[in-house]
Amino acid sequence: MQSEQLEKMLAHQLVENLPNHSVRDIYEYAVLPGGKLFRPHLVWSVLQDLNPALYETSKTNLNSDHARLSSAVEFHHTYTLLHDDLPCMDNDLTRRGKACTHIAFGEWQALLAGDGLLNISYQLLAKVKNQRALELLKFFSWALGPKGLIHGQVMDLSHEMTKSFASTLRTHELKTARLIQVSILGSALIANIKNYKAEKNLWKYSRLLGVNFQLIDDLSELAEEKLSEHELDVNPWLKFPAEALNETLKGLKQFETVSAELKLQNTNKIVLDYYKKMLSVIEPDLVNVNLHLKGKLDLAPVILVMKRFSNL
Amino acid sequence: MQSEQLEKMLAHQLVENLPNHSVRDIYEYAVLPGGKLFRPHLVWSVLQDLNPALYETSKTNLNSDHARLSSAVEFHHTYTLLHDDLPCMDNDLTRRGKACTHIAFGEWQALLAGDGLLNISYQLLAKVKNQRALELLKFFSWALGPKGLIHGQVMDLSHEMTKSFASTLRTHELKTARLIQVSILGSALIANIKNYKAEKNLWKYSRLLGVNFQLIDDLSELAEEKLSEHELDVNPWLKFPAEALNETLKGLKQFETVSAELKLQNTNKIVLDYYKKMLSVIEPDLVNVNLHLKGKLDLAPVILVMKRFSNL
Repeated sequence: MQSEQLEKMLAHQLVENLPNHSVRDIYEYAVLPGGKLFRPHLVWSVLQDLNPALYETSKTNLNSDHARLSSAVEFHHTYTLLHDDLPCMDNDLTRRGKACTHIAFGEWQALLAGDGLLNISYQLLAKVKNQRALELLKFFSWALGPKGLIHGQVMDLSHEMTKSFASTLRTHELKTARLIQVSILGSALIANIKNYKAEKNLWKYSRLLGVNFQLIDDLSELAEEKLSEHELDVNPWLKFPAEALNETLKGLKQFETVSAELKLQNTNKIVLDYYKKMLSVIEPDLVNVNLHLKGKLDLAPVILVMKRFSNL
Repeated sequence: MQSEQLEKMLAHQLVENLPNHSVRDIYEYAVLPGGKLFRPHLVWSVLQDLNPALYETSKTNLNSDHARLSSAVEFHHTYTLLHDDLPCMDNDLTRRGKACTHIAFGEWQALLAGDGLLNISYQLLAKVKNQRALELLKFFSWALGPKGLIHGQVMDLSHEMTKSFASTLRTHELKTARLIQVSILGSALIANIKNYKAEKNLWKYSRLLGVNFQLIDDLSELAEEKLSEHELDVNPWLKFPAEALNETLKGLKQFETVSAELKLQNTNKIVLDYYKKMLSVIEPDLVNVNLHLKGKLDLAPVILVMKRFSNL
């Protein structure tokens, strides 16, 4: 699936679900152009791996179940970014190389657009025609609600996250992995395959991927010469370097195994593209990374596994 | 249905859907003790009117479909209050006679608790076992999303609302009536009656009720000796006195007619209790109301219809 096609789906859903009013500019600014679109890409790659025939008939249909799910996970992701960036949360000024929505349009505008995107994500799921639609909705709302993603945000903002490495991992699991799990397992739920063993494996696969995704993202931030106060405070590679290295290496190897078993060819391609992108950030500035880590860690094994997985 | 029973349902759902963590205090503070609980009361009274047998078996079951819907509409209402009260929105300090949640716990706490309640409301609907569950979800998310309730909030905050009386009415319809319509029509959708004509009438009934509810609420605010800046800016009785009087009178009379046709005995009782409460606020301080209105309006006919409907 091309990113252009994913953006076309997102744009279509914004037109469908927003009033014909200048407020639409706010939503379009927040959603488009998309970032990496990692989560919607996962929705489609999982479908392509599990049910290629359904993938073929769904991919060009802007109102297919998977088009709705892939837009729902991206809208949900965007709502969390809009709220996270607000002054009372992380107080960020820029996002994806442009001013944050609350800087460009105002705070109440960004807050309400976040609420709007959250509502639209459920509106899209309510239109899914698959017989497992309610099961998908239950999983989605549990994974992203106050016991899931939102609890990860609470752990982050309350500084519970940095109390121990276990708390950091739990925060990554809730705040980052849950939405990635929803993308992968949610896509499988409505892929018309009835294979409960596969679902169990996908749970494990998506959890490993989500936590690794965040740990590698944390590592890539150290490629910057200067780190923000917040980054210095929360980055697990600085707070718990040995544990972060061990966990990343262990997670990457486990992921390699599970992923070889599951033979998710297209999904693995999305993941290796992500690893490639991260390597292209980390490797040229490895000197910065090592300076921040005060040369205490040997990152070669992590880079090796990422390269091996990416066949680089 | 007693308010105590509604609060028991709300408390039960908070325990079920929140992590075992101090964050629960924030949600409990925001939700309990409840306010008038007008919306959950409507959910139950509509069921009692349309399907008394189902009402009897559902009312004591904390996990019945209507227990979930009545909690969902109240949680959704509470999320809008939490976000509306934030400094970047209405910047309120007190709510229901106590400090607002963001004053008592902090801004990000109130923002995330709002997001959490919004998610829980969908989580509850995803567990509704009725065969029209997805239809309910579609209606709920449309009525309360960016084309519905949220657009009403946008019209209010952007001052579009006060540009004309028509804009005020539209704002009342979206910001206030939609959630009242979800409570009434949503309850009917899962009441196991298949009467599409009744549904059409309930749409009209609930729209009239919702708009009247807000106009009478606006009127009752004039009973205060001193009005806030915001109130002076937006109260339709001050901005468009003749139109507000006409519309309220017309709406009350239409509601009286529709409501006599529909024979919603229990639901009408909830409404007349509300009118009684509003009369008990307005009548003792009618002198303030008339001072704010500079004596230009004759409110006697409005009070007469409210009393007639309430059999006072």
